[in-house]
Parts: sequence; structure tokens; C-alpha cells
Amino acid sequence: MNVKERGLLIVLSGPSGVGKGTVRKALFSQPDIQLQYSISVTTRKPREGEVDGVDYFFKTREQFEQMIRQNELLEWAEYVGNYYGTPIEYVEKTLQEGKDVFLEIEVQGAMQVRKVFPEALFIFLAPPSLSELRKRIEMRGTESEELIRDRLKAAKEELEMMDAYDYVVENDQVELACERIKAIVTAEHCRRERVAQRYKKMLEVE
Amino acid sequence: MNVKERGLLIVLSGPSGVGKGTVRKALFSQPDIQLQYSISVTTRKPREGEVDGVDYFFKTREQFEQMIRQNELLEWAEYVGNYYGTPIEYVEKTLQEGKDVFLEIEVQGAMQVRKVFPEALFIFLAPPSLSELRKRIEMRGTESEELIRDRLKAAKEELEMMDAYDYVVENDQVELACERIKAIVTAEHCRRERVAQRYKKMLEVE
Repeated sequence: MNVKERGLLIVLSGPSGVGKGTVRKALFSQPDIQLQYSISVTTRKPREGEVDGVDYFFKTREQFEQMIRQNELLEWAEYVGNYYGTPIEYVEKTLQEGKDVFLEIEVQGAMQVRKVFPEALFIFLAPPSLSELRKRIEMRGTESEELIRDRLKAAKEELEMMDAYDYVVENDQVELACERIKAIVTAEHCRRERVAQRYKKMLEVE
Repeated sequence: MNVKERGLLIVLSGPSGVGKGTVRKALFSQPDIQLQYSISVTTRKPREGEVDGVDYFFKTREQFEQMIRQNELLEWAEYVGNYYGTPIEYVEKTLQEGKDVFLEIEVQGAMQVRKVFPEALFIFLAPPSLSELRKRIEMRGTESEELIRDRLKAAKEELEMMDAYDYVVENDQVELACERIKAIVTAEHCRRERVAQRYKKMLEVE
């Protein structure tokens, strides 16, 4: 009897420079983490200390382009002259085993994943601009109007970007951001629709 | 400038005997808990050690019935000859202050709250029957068929009851149940709709 639930696909994304990689590393350095990290493929050269098959799968451009042609990538993008992508096989196999898969990718990649896996959890990592902005507005007079205007413009852009996401996690502190991401995963496993499906499967099998 | 978000109303309910009171007490014994517990009104006599205004507001039947007539109760029910209810004033005031309010009430009360506060979070506390049931079915042969049939019947009833809830938390271990409830509250605060509303409020004020 197999009543195993398919795993959740969790996509962490957000504007560049927001600290996605830092949050991901902090998350996976925790001993109790239950998520499976999907390692990306890239054509960029390994940096010092980076290990093939741990940090990335390092490929040549020819190899990467072949993966594109053979539909082996869930999402891919070219960024500063290098390819980055997510191999679909690992993601699909791991989800089928009932394990949750975690991707940390760029915004354009997240939009590609959304088309293939609309049921995935999309988490937008946001800079701590909102709470900062609030403070700055409250302290108005001590700050230049121009600075506040720049911040407001950035907030407007973030607001537009986050529209395609299910959750927004503010990266005010890396540890707090990790706690929120873990809470989101725990809560999603408790959603009534999911639990009811498990009950139904159990009752059907009988 | 007030960009304060209204608090969340969290309703914990479930079949009688599932351990709602135990989970609620464990939750509020934690030092870091951010929820405000809404104390119920009752006409039953205080048990030993129970304090008026801490465990319950103890009232006479006349006082309680007056509260009903004056629409001072968010929900109420009569149970084994005694009235139990939730004063609406505390709930409304605390939510407006931006604090999350926690109710632990019977299933029929939860359905009343749903009519007034459809935006509340409804958490169904379920007995650990599902995982137990799975084990029993897997061990079939060592258990009587009748026992398994009884469990399946109970699971069917639970499945029907949980339909009106947003989340289901299995009460397999009190500590785990508390962790899941806290995770649900954290995750709900990160929902994009809520965060986006905060952004919008901030940008409108400007």
C-alpha cells in the first residue's frame, strides 16, 4: 500500500543582490533540515572551494546546450555570459519519492518553473526595505527627500515583482528568514486540502 | 502614519477529547508566544485552581443570557448543561491593535465564528488516527478486522468535519502540534497578499 504524498517543490527567488545564496546556505547548514537541495548546472568556472556535484554541476557550453535541446532543464537562463539551469530529472524523481525539493533561482527562472509546476511554492525573498522605509519616513527631516524617493521607487518595483509569488520573506536577518521559510514548508504540509487528500487515499485503498 | 496590519484571528478546534485544551495550555506556557489568548465566559463552576479572569470569566446564567441578548458574544454554545462563549469586545479590540488572537473552542462555535470572521485561520486538531490507522492496516492480521473498521469510520467522520478548516494539525505529540500551530501563524504573516497590502499602504500614504 502506498499512501505516500508527492513532495513539495519550493522555489526561493527574489531580486538580485537580496541574499538568496546566503539564505540558502544558512538553511542547508542546519542539521534538522528536511529539504532536498536541487543542485544547478552551470557553464561558469568553479570558484575556489567549489566542488562539482556539490555546489554546481559544471558543464561546457556544448554540454549545456545539448541539455536545453533534449529538454533536460526545468528552467535555464544566461547571466553575465554563463548558463545556469535546473536539471528536471532530479527534481521529478525526488518529488515522486515524497521528498520536498528546494530551488534557489533567479526571478526569470522562477517564472519558467511556474509554467511547468504551478502547484509549487513560490517564495519571494525581499530586502528589508519596507521596515527600513517606515523608519526613514517616520524620521523624515533627518533624511534627504531624494533618498526616501529612491526607496519608495524600489518598494514599488518589489511590489510588482512579488505578484507571482505565494509568500514574501523579508531578509532582515538571515536566521529569521530561514525560520520563516521552514515555517512556510511546515504550514503547507498542514493545509487541509493536502491532509484531506491523504485521508481520502487511505479510505479509498480500503 | 499608521501602517499597522490588523491581527490574525486563529481558531483552534476539533472533535471533543482530541486534546485542544492541552495543546492550548502547552502553547501558552511557551515564553516566546506572540498570541493573545481570548478567555472564554462560562456558567460552569470554577474547578480547583481555576482563577476568574485567567482560565475563564465565571458568570451566572442570567449574566450569560444577557450577554447573548446584547450581542456581546462572538460565539456561544450550551454543553453538558453549561454555557460557554467568547466575548466579542476583547477579540475585536485586540485585532485592531494589530495583535493575533487565539481561540480554542468547540466545533459548533468555530462554525459560528466562520460566519462573522471568514478571514480567520481555522485549524482543525485531529487525533493521530491517520498514522496509527496506516500502521494497523500494514500490520493487518495481528489486529481484529472490527478494530480497523471502527478506525476507518472515525477517519471518515474526521474527514467530513475538517472540510470547513484551513489547516489540519495532527495531535500525535503535544510539542509537535504546538510547533505546527506556530509555523502556520508565521507562514500566514508571510503570505504575499498580506505583505503586498502592507507595501501598498506604505506607498499610498506617501
